[in-house]
Amino acid sequence: MTNPTAAILVIGDEILSGRTKDKNIGWLAEQLNAQGIQLREARVIPDVRETIIETVKLLSAAHDLVFTSGGIGPTHDDITTECIATAFGKKVIRHPEAEARLIAHYKDTDIEFNEARQKMADIPEDATLIDNPLSAAPGYILGNVHVFAGVPSILQAMFEGLRDSLPGGVAMTRLTVQCAIGEGTIASVMESVQAAHDGVSIGSYPWFKPGQFGTAAVVSGLDPDVTHAAAAALARGVRDLGATAEIQPLGEGG
Amino acid sequence: MTNPTAAILVIGDEILSGRTKDKNIGWLAEQLNAQGIQLREARVIPDVRETIIETVKLLSAAHDLVFTSGGIGPTHDDITTECIATAFGKKVIRHPEAEARLIAHYKDTDIEFNEARQKMADIPEDATLIDNPLSAAPGYILGNVHVFAGVPSILQAMFEGLRDSLPGGVAMTRLTVQCAIGEGTIASVMESVQAAHDGVSIGSYPWFKPGQFGTAAVVSGLDPDVTHAAAAALARGVRDLGATAEIQPLGEGG
Repeated sequence: MTNPTAAILVIGDEILSGRTKDKNIGWLAEQLNAQGIQLREARVIPDVRETIIETVKLLSAAHDLVFTSGGIGPTHDDITTECIATAFGKKVIRHPEAEARLIAHYKDTDIEFNEARQKMADIPEDATLIDNPLSAAPGYILGNVHVFAGVPSILQAMFEGLRDSLPGGVAMTRLTVQCAIGEGTIASVMESVQAAHDGVSIGSYPWFKPGQFGTAAVVSGLDPDVTHAAAAALARGVRDLGATAEIQPLGEGG
Repeated sequence: MTNPTAAILVIGDEILSGRTKDKNIGWLAEQLNAQGIQLREARVIPDVRETIIETVKLLSAAHDLVFTSGGIGPTHDDITTECIATAFGKKVIRHPEAEARLIAHYKDTDIEFNEARQKMADIPEDATLIDNPLSAAPGYILGNVHVFAGVPSILQAMFEGLRDSLPGGVAMTRLTVQCAIGEGTIASVMESVQAAHDGVSIGSYPWFKPGQFGTAAVVSGLDPDVTHAAAAALARGVRDLGATAEIQPLGEGG
């Protein structure tokens, strides 16, 4: 079976200027993969209308699922919604349910629900709202595009509410073979083990500590049996070279 | 004058799987912008030959400068070099200078300079080497593409050696106007100040702390005078609404 594929689109000048460090790609990548969704690419693009529209069209056509972050706030530089709507040939409407949530959210504060904040209730027609338990202003789904806020805590809260309704696949089996030996020494072992185990891929990640070095070989595949067999074969091959090798269920390297 | 544009291409399954968190986009974004080079996009793509070749061609044609990270090590999953060469219609050669550096590096260790490690001396013909003061294996420049290692410390050391030879532009002037008020309240002020100052763009970044909130408005432009005037106008507009506003030379938000 084939797992669904996905792309992440980060929209924001603040990431490209280096002012803000993106945290959403790494977090979403972990969640999607754990869910059995294969993340195939991630892009960071500027707040430029044509670029957003063209990139959304392209990623939406190329992948089963697209996740965007950023550009749905109340200010003039928040242009994601009008661009998503244009990409799908839809109009932007004042969404009654989104508006009701925002009115309820601001009612008990001394913050005015002014014209700028009302903009956060503008959603493309036919979109499905995504709950925002932190600050009310919802994300939404249009076609296969899932539109999240850029603030990491809000994006994560939105994703948690959505997780169970995402089309899943079989989660990949991933094993780390921790090898106390340089990657250059076991390169040919890794290559032959990968070739001998269908559907398994081995990533090689060297690590260094004062006075120590080693390689975290990440063995991954859709079939758990074949993946475990490949990890065992790799560990044997490394031990045959006189180094220790330990299989771990999942790892962060040295 | 127009500043040179750039794209970053991160090549690596380990980022897309969520196993490793990318640190290179954020670091390079800061360095390039400080240098007056406009970063226009960043992409993360998997270790797939066709994808790497096509993306390198596309980004190389669309931008003045391209910076890649990852995939130039000694193992089977390091396929960046063969792909870069193919994208430019070049052959990969065993580079004498790169080989000499690697031989010298491994001579005083008990690490064998075996076939896998020798692969790190394979460089596209006509490429210019980029020094690697940490682990000898060089990066290189081919056309407008700058090929770096993926390990952040090595990428950073490679970039430092290269910095002075990069085509620079006029560094953008960036000012942060720290406003003790929600972005939704000053949305229309920001919009009108931006409209009234040619070539200036204002990014709006709300922040929250326990019991406090505010907006960091980042005012940026190529002309220092116009940019300072815009920041001053914005601060006045915010103070007219009864909130404090402080202009800072550069900031990380609240």
